[in-house]
Amino acid sequence: MTKRIVVVGGDATGMSAASTALRHAPDGDLEVVVLERGHYTSYSACGIPYWIAGDVGDRDELIARSPEQHREAGIDVRMRTEATAIDVEERTVSVRGVDDGDSYELGYDELVIATGAVPTVPPLEGADAEGIFGVQSLEQGEEIVKDLGAGDRRRAVVVGAGYIGVEMAEAMVSRGLETTILDMAPEPFTQVDPDMGALIREAMEGMGITVRTGTSVDGFDVGEDGRVRAVRAGDTVLPADIVIMGLGVKPNVALAAEAGLTIGESGGIATDVRMQAAPGVWAGGDCAEVRHRLSGKGVHIALGTHANKHGRIIGTNIAGGYGAFPGVIGTAISKVCSLEIARTGLGEREASAAGFGYVTASVESTTTAGYWPGAELMTVKLLAEQRTGRLLGAQIVGRAGSAKRIDVFATAIWNAMTVEQMTFMDLSYAPPFSPVWDAVLVAARKAAKEVQAAVPASPV
Amino acid sequence: MTKRIVVVGGDATGMSAASTALRHAPDGDLEVVVLERGHYTSYSACGIPYWIAGDVGDRDELIARSPEQHREAGIDVRMRTEATAIDVEERTVSVRGVDDGDSYELGYDELVIATGAVPTVPPLEGADAEGIFGVQSLEQGEEIVKDLGAGDRRRAVVVGAGYIGVEMAEAMVSRGLETTILDMAPEPFTQVDPDMGALIREAMEGMGITVRTGTSVDGFDVGEDGRVRAVRAGDTVLPADIVIMGLGVKPNVALAAEAGLTIGESGGIATDVRMQAAPGVWAGGDCAEVRHRLSGKGVHIALGTHANKHGRIIGTNIAGGYGAFPGVIGTAISKVCSLEIARTGLGEREASAAGFGYVTASVESTTTAGYWPGAELMTVKLLAEQRTGRLLGAQIVGRAGSAKRIDVFATAIWNAMTVEQMTFMDLSYAPPFSPVWDAVLVAARKAAKEVQAAVPASPV
Repeated sequence: MTKRIVVVGGDATGMSAASTALRHAPDGDLEVVVLERGHYTSYSACGIPYWIAGDVGDRDELIARSPEQHREAGIDVRMRTEATAIDVEERTVSVRGVDDGDSYELGYDELVIATGAVPTVPPLEGADAEGIFGVQSLEQGEEIVKDLGAGDRRRAVVVGAGYIGVEMAEAMVSRGLETTILDMAPEPFTQVDPDMGALIREAMEGMGITVRTGTSVDGFDVGEDGRVRAVRAGDTVLPADIVIMGLGVKPNVALAAEAGLTIGESGGIATDVRMQAAPGVWAGGDCAEVRHRLSGKGVHIALGTHANKHGRIIGTNIAGGYGAFPGVIGTAISKVCSLEIARTGLGEREASAAGFGYVTASVESTTTAGYWPGAELMTVKLLAEQRTGRLLGAQIVGRAGSAKRIDVFATAIWNAMTVEQMTFMDLSYAPPFSPVWDAVLVAARKAAKEVQAAVPASPV
Repeated sequence: MTKRIVVVGGDATGMSAASTALRHAPDGDLEVVVLERGHYTSYSACGIPYWIAGDVGDRDELIARSPEQHREAGIDVRMRTEATAIDVEERTVSVRGVDDGDSYELGYDELVIATGAVPTVPPLEGADAEGIFGVQSLEQGEEIVKDLGAGDRRRAVVVGAGYIGVEMAEAMVSRGLETTILDMAPEPFTQVDPDMGALIREAMEGMGITVRTGTSVDGFDVGEDGRVRAVRAGDTVLPADIVIMGLGVKPNVALAAEAGLTIGESGGIATDVRMQAAPGVWAGGDCAEVRHRLSGKGVHIALGTHANKHGRIIGTNIAGGYGAFPGVIGTAISKVCSLEIARTGLGEREASAAGFGYVTASVESTTTAGYWPGAELMTVKLLAEQRTGRLLGAQIVGRAGSAKRIDVFATAIWNAMTVEQMTFMDLSYAPPFSPVWDAVLVAARKAAKEVQAAVPASPV
């Protein structure tokens, strides 16, 4: 008997689930319908800033697979089509055409909710003016590219100095705009600790980006033509020809919440380890909550790599296999021009919030032997649990060739290694690739010393 | 009471042991004497090929610390001075000046043997001709640089396609010489499996290096001036203006063996986990044997990073602290021009020799998102233990930005991870740094499939 799978959302999680399920299920066993509100499927949202910057030449390069390609693979992709309601008892979805308004009901045996995230938009005066853009979808990316070419754009203001913010600041600078980036926090990029954020500020300023921290946006000045003229922040008025909003995202759970599904502490849809939200209902990607392996808490991390993993796990389960998501540890990487930034595990604020006592250690090192002509500097900061010495977090800020080392720390955290255990690990060495003591080992050694030096705060 | 530490050999292990001991011991507690046969201390032998290639501008950049600098730190460094015998009962060393022949006895409380390795030199006709060089010491590097500048050198033959061989082939090509590299094995670089070696051959040929495998050197034709003219290999005569011998090294244990110390199965000096060879006698670096964490066997791996670790551990122990070497897993990395090569754990031959049943998986991937302009190709091969799925080995051959990923596999092996456990690890992703599924994850997934697919060979 053919089972019908309905997938709501045709990007990473949705299409990956659809493809995986179809690939693993016996022929004719599954009918897969995908509902996608937008114009595109399976595209790299993470690539949008680089396309805007001009690093990626063509929009289509960001599209891994078009609706037509998915249809050729046997998936019934319905574009510009949205789900307006889910009945988890009756196992039906209410469907509506975005352009034509045509509505119908669709029964399902298994439902995949992959509705992604929506940008955080504070209710600011003038926020709906022309020239103010989010960077969530390929459509928004297209609008920005079009807008930049449509007139004299000399001054860009980027609101929010997180991942999207710093990447968009780079994009604006690459396109020759005078660029200011704003953030409420004392230092940019609060995904790392303030001492590491200060290094990012310094580097960004060196690239000609104006960094204004401790700055809340109060609203936007809008011209008579309806276009943004300036960003207002307290007494400061920052003239702007274009404004990029990068205040982060929140899970898009309206549909799931109305259907009575459980929304977790992070605001994302709660699921079990197999990404099942309710019998016959699966959820993954930017709309879902995942478990943090260190804090044990439910967290929401919008990231393409998780979304793809979720899709594969959901597809495997739907096809009758077994897939389980082991959780996250908050690994992420980014760059601003030649500066690389990476983190994994918990930062100081997060470690405290989770109740951990910890010590920190920061070291400066080089990407290669110091005498190698391409040697680049990097700073590595570690957090280790007090007394046990377990590695809790790592942060890297450095130049080309530094940040991917975060994966070594991620693997160490994944295995609950102590910094002491890491000190003499057999990592690769040759002069063009690392100093004789790789930065990972130097940082681990310093952290191990700090663990030993820390006087236990508890009586045992 | 002041204790006297005598260190035989003033490079990585010896000087690191001396410095660490002195730094950690109370003032005046230790007298440290270092005997060094050569002209230099604490230099990067691994950097010699790059200096010859011209990547590193000056010889002195390879010297981390000169004898004078060590003396300023309070170490009694005696250059051009060798140990000719050790009496472990009486705790004395017989010492001789290399240039003046002056001899004396030196008592010790603790002795560090850090005599390094000596090149493997087969007894070939003409092997002592002028123009034939090893690349073991800074002195030999100097001879090569001098020789290359001393006449018309157009054709280089490199004997042995291991680490030193491929690095020296790059150096010769970089200096504009017509370069041929020879090896007995069917593919170059037997530190990786033949299928990966074939990729290296292909890349080296693409760089204009002539690769002759399955080729044993029978001898050298020598001109009347005493200089090498050609390399003879069977019926083939390869004209050569300069010949580089890169047939590997063996531990330099003559002194230790004569003193009655135990030589291990690998030919290196056997030690306990603290690197102690006998009461009051320590050994480390290229002359010592270390334990392989996977095979459990004693192995000899001449590598600067291990030598430095050993030195630190020995110094810590001598100063009254506790240091233990946790063993190796055979991690190494190298490059030939733009090609990067890395390996960790066991290759197929080693896995079989250790008795492991295993499956393999090879994948091709890119260093960044496929659409990123700097995307480079790489091949990753994994070995996983049959049935258990434990990762046994990893090999990477690829272009710029690929090989350092070996450290993630090394960390996974260090923690006895299965490839299945690696499949959904939280590794860093952003388009300039990796595809949405990093090569590590793609390879782990393919290997996990192979583990599942393999029919158990045993009845349980």
